[in-house]
Amino acid sequence: MLDICLAGTGGMMPLPYRHLTCLMLRHEGSQLLIDCGEGTQIALKRRGWSFNPIDYILFTHFHADHISGLIGLLLSIGNAERKDPVTLVGPRGLKQVVSSLRIIAPELPFELEYMELGAQPQESLQLGAFHITAFKARHRIPCYGYTVEIPRQGRFQLEQARALGLPVQLWGILQRGETVEYEGETYFPEMVMGPPRKGLKVSYCTDSRPTDNIVEGVREADLFICEGMYGEAGSQQRAAEHMHMNFEEAADLAREAAVKELWLTHFSPAMPHPEEYLEVAQAIFPNALVGKDGLSKTLKFEE
Amino acid sequence: MLDICLAGTGGMMPLPYRHLTCLMLRHEGSQLLIDCGEGTQIALKRRGWSFNPIDYILFTHFHADHISGLIGLLLSIGNAERKDPVTLVGPRGLKQVVSSLRIIAPELPFELEYMELGAQPQESLQLGAFHITAFKARHRIPCYGYTVEIPRQGRFQLEQARALGLPVQLWGILQRGETVEYEGETYFPEMVMGPPRKGLKVSYCTDSRPTDNIVEGVREADLFICEGMYGEAGSQQRAAEHMHMNFEEAADLAREAAVKELWLTHFSPAMPHPEEYLEVAQAIFPNALVGKDGLSKTLKFEE
Repeated sequence: MLDICLAGTGGMMPLPYRHLTCLMLRHEGSQLLIDCGEGTQIALKRRGWSFNPIDYILFTHFHADHISGLIGLLLSIGNAERKDPVTLVGPRGLKQVVSSLRIIAPELPFELEYMELGAQPQESLQLGAFHITAFKARHRIPCYGYTVEIPRQGRFQLEQARALGLPVQLWGILQRGETVEYEGETYFPEMVMGPPRKGLKVSYCTDSRPTDNIVEGVREADLFICEGMYGEAGSQQRAAEHMHMNFEEAADLAREAAVKELWLTHFSPAMPHPEEYLEVAQAIFPNALVGKDGLSKTLKFEE
Repeated sequence: MLDICLAGTGGMMPLPYRHLTCLMLRHEGSQLLIDCGEGTQIALKRRGWSFNPIDYILFTHFHADHISGLIGLLLSIGNAERKDPVTLVGPRGLKQVVSSLRIIAPELPFELEYMELGAQPQESLQLGAFHITAFKARHRIPCYGYTVEIPRQGRFQLEQARALGLPVQLWGILQRGETVEYEGETYFPEMVMGPPRKGLKVSYCTDSRPTDNIVEGVREADLFICEGMYGEAGSQQRAAEHMHMNFEEAADLAREAAVKELWLTHFSPAMPHPEEYLEVAQAIFPNALVGKDGLSKTLKFEE
């Protein structure tokens, strides 16, 4: 199960009813955030999500609207009695940027751990139960999209387990993915587990021109959350000038990547009612939604 | 005339309905802000105040809840096509702190000018039409309160002007405070202007223990805006431990300084309904109000 909440949907500048861009994910009590513009701590409070379980914060890039809420967020995490380290992930320079911002919050009751992304177009990371693929985007400064996956192991093969002659009470160890030593023999999980089943896959990409590398990174996601800075049909040129995407380009990516569902986000402050342009996206990719602050969904493993 | 708006009343952490601490003042088209915690740009938008005329931003101190909204605010000022410099005033280290925060906003379309306060208990500055007194407060780090005054010149003395034999069309120059050369003689404003009349005076002090220097700095203000971190009667010890003031201490200062009106602000996030403690303050200083986001007032010169 993976809880998804689009905490903020604003690009560039917040509006009174629209927080800056932030995506929140929750799986088995662990929270992962992607981006935290100014006001993210308020958005979290508004949605009732806790601060203490925030284990990971990923940054697409270092423009202010994606990171200006970090200091307030870290202070609120500290105030929620967090003691365990929080891991930050982002483009090269992450530690320098965060350290510089921390001039107004030099003391925190927990450690920060940094993972800076390298030069490859696609990079894999394991953050607790979250399997991450960072994929390069194309913006004015180094920028990444992220795919977050919750893998799902194969079915337990009852017949094979019986055939091994292992006592039933040892089956659970193999099911948890561990090896069993029994009467001088070694038993491996793959002896009783079927091939991995379809897991859960959410992708997030903002502040980029469309690229093949994005299509690759988000392919067949259950949910693709993509920037739609401009809604109007035919606004591709404006989007290109500002190194952003419009609704049509986001919908094109969703179609090419064969994702299941598309949420648009990161709206220009000059577009107070992005829902007016929903049809522009749906004409290309019917299962598109125009995001709004608080839009939530829970993904579950297929039956 | 001086417009006053308490844009945010939160201390330490914002709440969904309470922005972090910020005071906005406006006089003859020029705006002055004191402090700008995270979300200040949203608070300004919510109140309908413009970004372009923000000429001065004063900081009491560099704890995050008083400055974490600066970067977003500067970007919004830039987006409002500001070209003139913006002056920042604050404790020593101001330029270093702001430069460090600007790692995520290195380019702005206007200059920043810095005025760092010195070691004196009271310091005077002239910022356009705003006459400022910065007075030292007592917190865990260097901290100042501010008194903002709009002085008012004396009445024009018609009889004295006539007695000088100056042509009527030159009177206005003296009224504007300038010197006039006429038929080989020099005429000074004070020859026709009466003594200065009572101007307007607003004082602001947060994050401090009560001190005599604060009483001195805010004496006889028309409006004194003071932190009331804790409301409960008898919470002085808790306030002292955290180097803050409670409602009673703020009301004591207001009474000692003989101000006309007191607004309480900078409430602990653990106090969602500070208005419940209004009577605690009013028992000491009857003309007290518990601030809330957006509380506004316009001070006018006395008739």
